[in-house]
Amino acid sequence: MKAPLLVLLLLALSQIASAQPTVERWGLFEAGFTGPSTGNPFTDVALKATFTQGNASHDVTGFYDGGGKYFVRFMPETIGEWRFVTHSNRPELDGSSGTFTAVAPSAANHGPVSVAHTFHFAYADGTPFRQVGTTCYAWIHQGDAREEQTLKTLASSPFNKLRMCIFPKFYEWNKNDPAYFPFEGTANHWDTTRFNPEFFHHLEKRLAQLRDLGIEADLILFHPYDKGHWGFDRMDAASDDRYLRYVVARLAAFRHVWWSMANEYDFMKEKTEADWDRFFHIVQSSDPYAHLRSIHNGSKIYNHTQPWVTHVSIQDGAAVGDPERAMLLRDVYRKPIVYDEVKYEGDIPQRWGKLSADEMVFRFWNGLIGGTYVGHGETYANADEILWWSKGGVLKGQSPARLAFLRKVMDESPAEGIDPIDKWQDENTAGKAGEYYLIYFGKSTPKEWPFTLYKDALKDGQKFQVEILDTWAMTVTPVGSTFTTKKRDNYFFEDAAKKSVALPGKPYLALRIRRVP
Amino acid sequence: MKAPLLVLLLLALSQIASAQPTVERWGLFEAGFTGPSTGNPFTDVALKATFTQGNASHDVTGFYDGGGKYFVRFMPETIGEWRFVTHSNRPELDGSSGTFTAVAPSAANHGPVSVAHTFHFAYADGTPFRQVGTTCYAWIHQGDAREEQTLKTLASSPFNKLRMCIFPKFYEWNKNDPAYFPFEGTANHWDTTRFNPEFFHHLEKRLAQLRDLGIEADLILFHPYDKGHWGFDRMDAASDDRYLRYVVARLAAFRHVWWSMANEYDFMKEKTEADWDRFFHIVQSSDPYAHLRSIHNGSKIYNHTQPWVTHVSIQDGAAVGDPERAMLLRDVYRKPIVYDEVKYEGDIPQRWGKLSADEMVFRFWNGLIGGTYVGHGETYANADEILWWSKGGVLKGQSPARLAFLRKVMDESPAEGIDPIDKWQDENTAGKAGEYYLIYFGKSTPKEWPFTLYKDALKDGQKFQVEILDTWAMTVTPVGSTFTTKKRDNYFFEDAAKKSVALPGKPYLALRIRRVP
Repeated sequence: MKAPLLVLLLLALSQIASAQPTVERWGLFEAGFTGPSTGNPFTDVALKATFTQGNASHDVTGFYDGGGKYFVRFMPETIGEWRFVTHSNRPELDGSSGTFTAVAPSAANHGPVSVAHTFHFAYADGTPFRQVGTTCYAWIHQGDAREEQTLKTLASSPFNKLRMCIFPKFYEWNKNDPAYFPFEGTANHWDTTRFNPEFFHHLEKRLAQLRDLGIEADLILFHPYDKGHWGFDRMDAASDDRYLRYVVARLAAFRHVWWSMANEYDFMKEKTEADWDRFFHIVQSSDPYAHLRSIHNGSKIYNHTQPWVTHVSIQDGAAVGDPERAMLLRDVYRKPIVYDEVKYEGDIPQRWGKLSADEMVFRFWNGLIGGTYVGHGETYANADEILWWSKGGVLKGQSPARLAFLRKVMDESPAEGIDPIDKWQDENTAGKAGEYYLIYFGKSTPKEWPFTLYKDALKDGQKFQVEILDTWAMTVTPVGSTFTTKKRDNYFFEDAAKKSVALPGKPYLALRIRRVP
Repeated sequence: MKAPLLVLLLLALSQIASAQPTVERWGLFEAGFTGPSTGNPFTDVALKATFTQGNASHDVTGFYDGGGKYFVRFMPETIGEWRFVTHSNRPELDGSSGTFTAVAPSAANHGPVSVAHTFHFAYADGTPFRQVGTTCYAWIHQGDAREEQTLKTLASSPFNKLRMCIFPKFYEWNKNDPAYFPFEGTANHWDTTRFNPEFFHHLEKRLAQLRDLGIEADLILFHPYDKGHWGFDRMDAASDDRYLRYVVARLAAFRHVWWSMANEYDFMKEKTEADWDRFFHIVQSSDPYAHLRSIHNGSKIYNHTQPWVTHVSIQDGAAVGDPERAMLLRDVYRKPIVYDEVKYEGDIPQRWGKLSADEMVFRFWNGLIGGTYVGHGETYANADEILWWSKGGVLKGQSPARLAFLRKVMDESPAEGIDPIDKWQDENTAGKAGEYYLIYFGKSTPKEWPFTLYKDALKDGQKFQVEILDTWAMTVTPVGSTFTTKKRDNYFFEDAAKKSVALPGKPYLALRIRRVP
């Protein structure tokens, strides 16, 4: 066995403790090699590596990075020493071996996100991931100044997931060419057998920055916002498949990557549903880490009951109009539901981009109370055509501050997630029966709430503390006295002294009710 | 070849025009034979018949009916002469042959119902089937007097589909033993290899009566309302499968049969989801006519995206709370959606059985405007424990008259079905763009409606007539003048003279807007 010919590059490495390279658990280990640069190394050269630790073994596909350089990346999911050996159809790349040590992760590294408790998400270390997403579809194609500005905005935003396209976007307010293209060639004359490493270096730099901000990257692999302008929406099947395999080989070792097969998949008229099924299969079979997989629709929803769909990603302009609508799809899918597009806060003429800020916040709360998750986007028109929804830049709306308040509420909620408490009967109450309740009043303006909780997990004599949340003013007001449960009838408990909570008669109020010992 | 040994019995036969037996297209042809009566004919004797007409050929399973009698039933789907020949493992039943002629159906016979226009239903002759269903789960187990009373009630009701169980029901208000049981034996000591022909004769008599009333029979094959009292909910797999095959052999030739694998399937804890998949496969593969197939849930929805599910049958206590909720599942399933249980009109203490009549009617209208269908049930408590929902009898509620009004509106609507007009934007408007609109105001109490229609299929200068429907008072009031379309903006057309419709400011109003030449 030969040692790797190039240096071992260790990205996301917090420390190098010994001669043996180390990388954090769920960090990105990268081994580089030199090999052929003639012919077409992208298609002519096969490179894989087998990573082993004890009985665990992972086969990982490498990739050509131009200039005779080849890399294999690996995300160790367990700590301790890992060994690897390469396999290639080219002798100079075959049989290289090495070792590294995966060490405990740093404080901000919780590992990749996956499904937890059927309807929710958690990082690999068990920390709940409570999705508060936004969209900047084409942010990595706006040049360094705008892209750095976007990162700065994200750093102080409430958002922990970003939907973003790999391919550039051609659409209203999006007519600018990107600095990098993914293939060699020119528009509609790409050599899709030859990737452009610069494009991917840039993408990976931005991905790493998102990761370091603690933001999950919901990578959109295809989208229809091209219509033949560059032609990335109408490549042939072999090009589509090669592109997917290359992307997964390069990016799967980033722990914060989610795979979104498409945005508005059904608007890509060149593709059939069978194509999308195939894309899922390619991604699923190529990704050693089983990152989250879904697909976002225009007007036709994909069959998210398919086993290769890990969670539901839906555009629906009305589904979070109330919590009951939001929760309907939980029963259908038995998976986490993310309403990734529910229209955007903004003021453009299109009906999908003119939500008021309070309506956007209202929709997030409806989604939360429905036991689901919501995505934000912002479309305020302006002369320079920089709309956050697509290009990033700065946030101008009033909703992000309220979504930060919402996220704080979420962060203080039960680790198992917020679930409906009294399905079909009370759409406004969610939480964890017996311990924690959120009651959201939406647009109604109550002046009083008689303490009443559905019977599940309750018995007489339990004590609860109540806080009044003004979800728009972002205030939390504790109610002075505690409440004590007493069975009222076959369905409900009330306060033993029949106490009520006085409310300020405004819209967008909520109650947080927590059990006290 | 031998001729059938027994007489040819022709049920549902409107005429006998010649020496050759005739049966209506979509009628029920039955050939009877004598064979072994010793041993266990239900399991020992195999009997099939092949029915042919030109190149068409159908293999149909026969059944043992006790007393040495065997039958094969067949529903001809095309007119003209049909030939058949039997196949059996017993020589006396093998090789019998015969012919009959299928003639044009009588006026009330439109054939079986199947899916049409993705979200709707039609009879085989193309007549739209606009579902207005009800439930009398155990009506065939109440004795002749009650059963005849139920049929009389149904005859003057608006309902064109009835959900009904094959097995008897043991539940609150349902503790009476039926007159017939499906197997030989006694409770929890059934010989499930021996069916009780009397039970099935009785079932078939009632089925034929429903058919003759023009009511589709949504046959519930399993249900949990037994809990071991008789034990039909916890038979072994072989018994379940044998029962399904016997039921399909006897009943598939009834044109008005729908197969509902279960009521509240998920409440039958003895069964797994794989069992339900298997039941679908058995029914699908045994039924030569591909009758509609679905399954009704308790709190866990079955995966209705499976290809063997023809339409969605759902219990949800809140899904028809507004039209938007109702329509959400259309996008998910791309199949007809029938909300078969949305709680019941009644006054029992249980929250699923105390809807007011106006709420029940409201839910039907919400379903209609959402492009879906709804089921009725009635649970008014009374001393004799005869609740329509389960036992039948008489209807006491105020909703059926309003559902008759609704059905008349449906019957006068476009053949293609009522679909949402402006998805995600206007949940209150449905119909067929450019031709026919229903606008339902639900619980709001408008005094005026400015004539406004979404742009699809419209252009300037089209004329529309408007009627005001009071869905509770059951009145139709034409608006005197016609309205003429004029483009208002990128989304809407208004009246050229900006006319409005004056409304009486009551709840439960609707507008019916029809294009005039």
